[in-house]
Amino acid sequence: MQRTLGTCYYPEHWREEIWEDDAKRMAQTGLSWVRIGEFAWSRIETTPGQLQWEWLDRAIQTLVSADLKVVLGTPTATPPRWMVDRHPDMFALDQNGQIRGFGSRRHYCFSHEGYRAECRRIVQLLAERYGPGDQIAAWQTDNEYGCHDTTVSYSTAARHAFVNWLRDRYGDDISALNKAWGNVFWSMEYDRFEQIDLPNLTVTEANPAHTQAFRRFSSDQVISFNKEQVDILRAHSDAPIAHNYMGRVTDFDHHKIGADLDIASWDSYPLGFLEDRVGATPDDQRRYARQGDPDFQAFHHDLYRAVGRGRWWVMEQQPGPVNWAPYNPAPLPGMVRFWTWEAFAHGAETVCYFRWRQAPFAQEQLHAGLLRPDSADAPALEEARQVAEELTEAPSAAVAQAPVALIFDYDAEWAWQVQPHGAGLSYFDLVMDHYRALRRLGLTIDIVPPTQTDFTGYALILAPGLIHMADELRQALEGAEGQVLLGPRSGARDADFNIPTTTLPPAIDGLDVRVIAVESLRPDMPVALAQVPENSTGPSTSAPPGTVGKYMEMLEGTAAPVLQTADGRPVAVSNGSTTYCAGWLDATGLERLLTHLCATAALPVQRMPDGVRTRKTATEEFWFNHLAKPTDSPVGVLPPAAVVRRPIDND
Amino acid sequence: MQRTLGTCYYPEHWREEIWEDDAKRMAQTGLSWVRIGEFAWSRIETTPGQLQWEWLDRAIQTLVSADLKVVLGTPTATPPRWMVDRHPDMFALDQNGQIRGFGSRRHYCFSHEGYRAECRRIVQLLAERYGPGDQIAAWQTDNEYGCHDTTVSYSTAARHAFVNWLRDRYGDDISALNKAWGNVFWSMEYDRFEQIDLPNLTVTEANPAHTQAFRRFSSDQVISFNKEQVDILRAHSDAPIAHNYMGRVTDFDHHKIGADLDIASWDSYPLGFLEDRVGATPDDQRRYARQGDPDFQAFHHDLYRAVGRGRWWVMEQQPGPVNWAPYNPAPLPGMVRFWTWEAFAHGAETVCYFRWRQAPFAQEQLHAGLLRPDSADAPALEEARQVAEELTEAPSAAVAQAPVALIFDYDAEWAWQVQPHGAGLSYFDLVMDHYRALRRLGLTIDIVPPTQTDFTGYALILAPGLIHMADELRQALEGAEGQVLLGPRSGARDADFNIPTTTLPPAIDGLDVRVIAVESLRPDMPVALAQVPENSTGPSTSAPPGTVGKYMEMLEGTAAPVLQTADGRPVAVSNGSTTYCAGWLDATGLERLLTHLCATAALPVQRMPDGVRTRKTATEEFWFNHLAKPTDSPVGVLPPAAVVRRPIDND
Amino acid sequence: MQRTLGTCYYPEHWREEIWEDDAKRMAQTGLSWVRIGEFAWSRIETTPGQLQWEWLDRAIQTLVSADLKVVLGTPTATPPRWMVDRHPDMFALDQNGQIRGFGSRRHYCFSHEGYRAECRRIVQLLAERYGPGDQIAAWQTDNEYGCHDTTVSYSTAARHAFVNWLRDRYGDDISALNKAWGNVFWSMEYDRFEQIDLPNLTVTEANPAHTQAFRRFSSDQVISFNKEQVDILRAHSDAPIAHNYMGRVTDFDHHKIGADLDIASWDSYPLGFLEDRVGATPDDQRRYARQGDPDFQAFHHDLYRAVGRGRWWVMEQQPGPVNWAPYNPAPLPGMVRFWTWEAFAHGAETVCYFRWRQAPFAQEQLHAGLLRPDSADAPALEEARQVAEELTEAPSAAVAQAPVALIFDYDAEWAWQVQPHGAGLSYFDLVMDHYRALRRLGLTIDIVPPTQTDFTGYALILAPGLIHMADELRQALEGAEGQVLLGPRSGARDADFNIPTTTLPPAIDGLDVRVIAVESLRPDMPVALAQVPENSTGPSTSAPPGTVGKYMEMLEGTAAPVLQTADGRPVAVSNGSTTYCAGWLDATGLERLLTHLCATAALPVQRMPDGVRTRKTATEEFWFNHLAKPTDSPVGVLPPAAVVRRPIDND
Repeated sequence: MQRTLGTCYYPEHWREEIWEDDAKRMAQTGLSWVRIGEFAWSRIETTPGQLQWEWLDRAIQTLVSADLKVVLGTPTATPPRWMVDRHPDMFALDQNGQIRGFGSRRHYCFSHEGYRAECRRIVQLLAERYGPGDQIAAWQTDNEYGCHDTTVSYSTAARHAFVNWLRDRYGDDISALNKAWGNVFWSMEYDRFEQIDLPNLTVTEANPAHTQAFRRFSSDQVISFNKEQVDILRAHSDAPIAHNYMGRVTDFDHHKIGADLDIASWDSYPLGFLEDRVGATPDDQRRYARQGDPDFQAFHHDLYRAVGRGRWWVMEQQPGPVNWAPYNPAPLPGMVRFWTWEAFAHGAETVCYFRWRQAPFAQEQLHAGLLRPDSADAPALEEARQVAEELTEAPSAAVAQAPVALIFDYDAEWAWQVQPHGAGLSYFDLVMDHYRALRRLGLTIDIVPPTQTDFTGYALILAPGLIHMADELRQALEGAEGQVLLGPRSGARDADFNIPTTTLPPAIDGLDVRVIAVESLRPDMPVALAQVPENSTGPSTSAPPGTVGKYMEMLEGTAAPVLQTADGRPVAVSNGSTTYCAGWLDATGLERLLTHLCATAALPVQRMPDGVRTRKTATEEFWFNHLAKPTDSPVGVLPPAAVVRRPIDND
Repeated sequence: MQRTLGTCYYPEHWREEIWEDDAKRMAQTGLSWVRIGEFAWSRIETTPGQLQWEWLDRAIQTLVSADLKVVLGTPTATPPRWMVDRHPDMFALDQNGQIRGFGSRRHYCFSHEGYRAECRRIVQLLAERYGPGDQIAAWQTDNEYGCHDTTVSYSTAARHAFVNWLRDRYGDDISALNKAWGNVFWSMEYDRFEQIDLPNLTVTEANPAHTQAFRRFSSDQVISFNKEQVDILRAHSDAPIAHNYMGRVTDFDHHKIGADLDIASWDSYPLGFLEDRVGATPDDQRRYARQGDPDFQAFHHDLYRAVGRGRWWVMEQQPGPVNWAPYNPAPLPGMVRFWTWEAFAHGAETVCYFRWRQAPFAQEQLHAGLLRPDSADAPALEEARQVAEELTEAPSAAVAQAPVALIFDYDAEWAWQVQPHGAGLSYFDLVMDHYRALRRLGLTIDIVPPTQTDFTGYALILAPGLIHMADELRQALEGAEGQVLLGPRSGARDADFNIPTTTLPPAIDGLDVRVIAVESLRPDMPVALAQVPENSTGPSTSAPPGTVGKYMEMLEGTAAPVLQTADGRPVAVSNGSTTYCAGWLDATGLERLLTHLCATAALPVQRMPDGVRTRKTATEEFWFNHLAKPTDSPVGVLPPAAVVRRPIDND
Repeated sequence: MQRTLGTCYYPEHWREEIWEDDAKRMAQTGLSWVRIGEFAWSRIETTPGQLQWEWLDRAIQTLVSADLKVVLGTPTATPPRWMVDRHPDMFALDQNGQIRGFGSRRHYCFSHEGYRAECRRIVQLLAERYGPGDQIAAWQTDNEYGCHDTTVSYSTAARHAFVNWLRDRYGDDISALNKAWGNVFWSMEYDRFEQIDLPNLTVTEANPAHTQAFRRFSSDQVISFNKEQVDILRAHSDAPIAHNYMGRVTDFDHHKIGADLDIASWDSYPLGFLEDRVGATPDDQRRYARQGDPDFQAFHHDLYRAVGRGRWWVMEQQPGPVNWAPYNPAPLPGMVRFWTWEAFAHGAETVCYFRWRQAPFAQEQLHAGLLRPDSADAPALEEARQVAEELTEAPSAAVAQAPVALIFDYDAEWAWQVQPHGAGLSYFDLVMDHYRALRRLGLTIDIVPPTQTDFTGYALILAPGLIHMADELRQALEGAEGQVLLGPRSGARDADFNIPTTTLPPAIDGLDVRVIAVESLRPDMPVALAQVPENSTGPSTSAPPGTVGKYMEMLEGTAAPVLQTADGRPVAVSNGSTTYCAGWLDATGLERLLTHLCATAALPVQRMPDGVRTRKTATEEFWFNHLAKPTDSPVGVLPPAAVVRRPIDND
């Protein structure tokens, strides 16, 4: 696999006279790729049916002539204003029934059939014109599906589509739906599918089965919207097709959509995400203000490697301060290079910087680019050039399977949102806590989808918080060779959001444990773990033993305790190969449990110094210092923004 | 009076085959009562006019055959989905005009005439079928009026009804209304009643007279809605009629509705209420996380004893973690028994546990029951059984009049909400502060309505915060034999929310004091009280003297000071029998004042240890330890969740 | 210029029998002015077309007969209820499209043509009746434009007017608008002006150019609304015309509206503003709870002196606790006198107390007056009388030009709101920080509009945060004799909200500096300044050197550094006469920079003791102690609420 760089470019924003020079400077910087076109609908089709291809032809020609490879975006994320005249009801509605109208971007409802037809039409035109030949090296569908909370819409179009989706799912049998959802509760039974409304504007919470079904439907709408574009592009082009996902946008199932695409890519804004997506404490927000969280980007790199089934890019890489976060500091010098190498360490094929030149107008005028608005070099350009040079000596890489698999399940994320039971309980945060703990132990991780059935080669498999577990996954985990960590909430609901009652959860073959009650706790009421568990096969410690809190389950059964509370209640129990954890462990407790499981699995761990992270590919070992100060590490003192790349001693 | 136990059961949720076993287990546990039916409309009337009585007949028969007494609920809190097709505008609207639609419960506006007719129809049918004979031992109307903020609706139906309500109140004379409300202010005068809108969606605050009138109207709508059901049930049945109220739901006048019913009952969720209804500090939320607030349940027990005019139940008693609070911990072992005995100590006839079996589906699937979802015993079942056994030795009780009366006035609660004057000032909190202070002094309390005119036998009468005082109450208090404590804000507004100007408030005969100005203060700006009041008949202290804060009045007049600020301004003044307190005292100040008044009234007080509370009935003295640890008390060391019941030495 | 006192009176609120006595008591107190009528429309025109002048004639006559001068308000802030029947769509809509309806005040949209016609009609009638003769000594238009966020409306009327306003601005050329706004970004281009919607209800932020245009339009609507009234009044009366502005209401351009009026006046509520307009810390909120912020009123006095081009009043002066702030404490004794003299120190002609008598009804029933609701003297009356007596010995005053000019630009305020870039960044706060720093240095300040072109006589000219600078201002500042302080963000956008790219900002002739990047920082991440700047012409210090934070720019160019960060980046740079500051300095940093500039300008400064402020007029020097305790000062120990007035030694 070749490692390459690129950028995002908007020829329609600039005088045509400078295109050629722009292209030349891109190539001189060492960039190979340039993404264009994804917001250009109003210039391609200035009025309905009037196509203006010539400028785009010339722009592509200019870029290709400079030896750049073009990624062409379908422009469906920004329908022009005339589209609204043709489809006045094309907008999504928010949970309060408020229109999300024209004037920025993503102003469409995924369920609107009229707009879908328009999208098929423009993609068809685009594919017909640019699909043949080899001018286009890759495609991008739309742009950042789900950004600005646009997956879930409460429009009339969405309601109609939801009713049909339910009709399909429940075999057009309304009593089957009533039974599956428990609608007898509170007399919520329906007589006909047409009576089913979206689960907003209720007096108190709607039936969680209703809401979860709506979340699944909403995700499916994104997937089918994307599939329509993919099918058209494939019919006219052999170039690979990508979409650019976002950080912590989880409203649609990326694993599912990824199966329809060739490449997963994502838009990585380490500083933009820090304040309100990472979940960092104020202390860490200050500490990592100019570097970004040490695990958040890595997590998404690993996640999108799974979504792309191995092929993944960073389509947009933050090159300086952005405009849209609560606070928008400048990166520490060296961080743009650092982030690029971090992506490569996780197996990225290509990293594109967003954007080539800072726009002096409109919403993102304070978003830095590789060039300043006056076309002078911005600081990131030199760092990109440095990576390009470094790549000439390390042009290719190969990703190896990691020793650890961590399952990430979008359906579980929605279910936790639908029914957190305790304020602030989030599946994403739970998985991130596990991911962080693994990283602090120096481990290289694969994220895998819940549809994974082959866990061969994994010494450790983590499946926290999988509130519903399909039979296939359950069987795969029961048969896995590695150490398996489940819980809390594993299998706590069936496919229709009911508590299984024949056998109480988690119902794992060979592990005699049942969750007989659950409780959620104030986050400031942690329960201390025991130093040395009584009658336990688990790890004793003389250090602070950690805590369990926020969410705890009461267990029944004979499985051997691995961790207990100080007053003797089981927290994690095991049968030697499968461990079930019945609560939300703090960092200390989680590391203690994982260290124990790694030891059992004979998987070596290496405690990372504060702010330091490491990762291995098939042939290289990377070390990163995320602190703004020098720090000691097993590979020597690392200055701020340091990246160390070493060949792996595979003897 | 017999003390009995019961539970809440939903036969429609379960296979008919297990009903008989359920009934048998209830009886074996020692339960006497079973409430059913209150959410079953969609099963009773599956389509409009198609009544399905047979299953309900069999369910009742099964329960009665097991020697259980049935409370049958009218199902009007959960109209089925077909009702919405018949009455598409039946919903309440919130303050922003947003529909509160179908999909959970309580989705109706109390002012909708069409829905009211439907309710009369179904109650009539229910009463005709089950009223005759003795199968039904008691009735419940609807369920938790006002829950989920459903008392106040801004619908068109509400507006029409409000206009008519005003027309009645002001003798169809629009100038009388304009004058009464001071509508000349800001040119708000109306020409016709039809012009009057609901007091929402105004540019800045609406006229408080307007808003208060709307709050009174909204309360009256609940009362007339309930009365319609009561009249129909009474025409067909001799069984007593109850309604199940909630904790800190104050949007309608429970005293008024209680006058139409035979029994008051309430739904007591000590842990569910702790986070956001009690007003506890985070420290106390942690401290009482598994026990509940030491005074909140007691207050409601006393309040609903007043509302039921002596006859009251707990219709729903929390038996384990619930699903709906911000955090949902499990109770400390023993607390279910503890809460049951606490209710009996306050004179409850019956305590019913909600619910018999945890439902594995729908909104409350994480609400614990006496049985687990797999039908095994949940922890609470054993505690219920223990109480049932204890009751065999103490089957009956008698409540005695308490030495202290505390007035609770729903109209005052609304007035303080309409015009708090200082952020966070709440009548409910003010009354609770007085109630807590009395309890810390070991006193047994009666809560009484503002319509009380006979205070014979009360050594101490508290009427804090009564912003409007009817002449009858004023006279009754002026003539009372006990020590009377008024203020702040007593009589500060007339019946139309105007400041009385002929004599400034409080205008109490024989107490020369006038409130000439008021101020509200940041809660972090308390004003110190004097240790020894100058020229004062009040108590001196060498301990910290307490503070007044949040709200203070400036007084004029010759009444003798009882408490003063450190800089000599009067805070409480007295004529020897009536005391007026001109500010919001802290716990220390309030205890100091109340201790002084008790001494004057020759009423002995006993300072409670932290977390300990006591109460006397006619024949018994109860002691409760609300702490999660053992604590010393006048009746010995009390373990956590301890209940001590002792005969009173009436010599 | 004579200094006089007055009050605000509502004859329509009171029985006619007491008018004469009220007038007599006003005169006896020493008041000269009485404002009436501004909320009386429903009494003047009881039904459409039915004018009731007689009561108003008699009221005016009564007041004039007592030698009071009458300010007559146009009643357009409170249209009567019948107006809504005539113009059901006259209301403003808020950002969510919610109606802001009848029931309080200011319930109209400035763009509604029907309501505008009604306003012209009633003002015409009023002017015709009371304009001739000399009964009316001054006029007030409407009341508190913009109060309760009423400047910006999202109604259909506003949309139509906005489209026309844009058509004018862009010469009816839609491609000119598209280009000016950069609408090519995200395909936001319009085909026709009619397609342009208001910038609300978008999926993510609207184009800042769009929003800023809408803010400018909204301001212009207020100005033209007011102008219509002024033109009518002028045609019938020679009396001066005023409007009463508010504290920190900045949604319309007061400088522009002031140019149409004769007198600026404002409504000064020092305690009402403290909690949520001043931006004070909780500590300062407690510290100044009964005195008000030491600079907030002074700032507005200076601001409205500029708006009134020298002639300004306090139309409403807080006389005791008000009803509308989060907390409403009583002023410290003496503060009503203090605030009055403070206004005179800043050049006020007249201070009117709001209101004469506390109303016992409606929204403001807890707003203190000079009289209590029972007509007895409230505490403020005595303080007003004292000022009146003091004025007999100091009846007149003259304002001198201050040595310091501080530009305040409403357009900049909107631009910072439209695009703060960092959470909480506010132009108003930035200007206030500069104003406070100047006051702590004992300086007397003129606020000037951004249209000022003559800076003769100013030793120091401050223009912080002027994100757009008109060419005229830029030239005037470049040619000014005094020391000029610019930045941050000076000239950062052109007139259409684009970043200038030919030369990067600030583009000041003779100052070689360019802002090449910007960043915003968490407020808890201040960057330390250097003690002694390297290669710097600026001030060194051995004291704590201060910090820069929240917002920082990266500079390029050869201008000499005056302040630097501890790690050597330039923060302020200068060419000897113009200084550009590239960040938000803290109090210490700002004082350090200003002290340096004053020294350069040979302008003496005098560090004020905590809570003490001073100001000079042409002939007097005032000293004020804002603390609630005595404090030492250059003019001796000042007791709480002290005002010292001394003749200036002009030798």
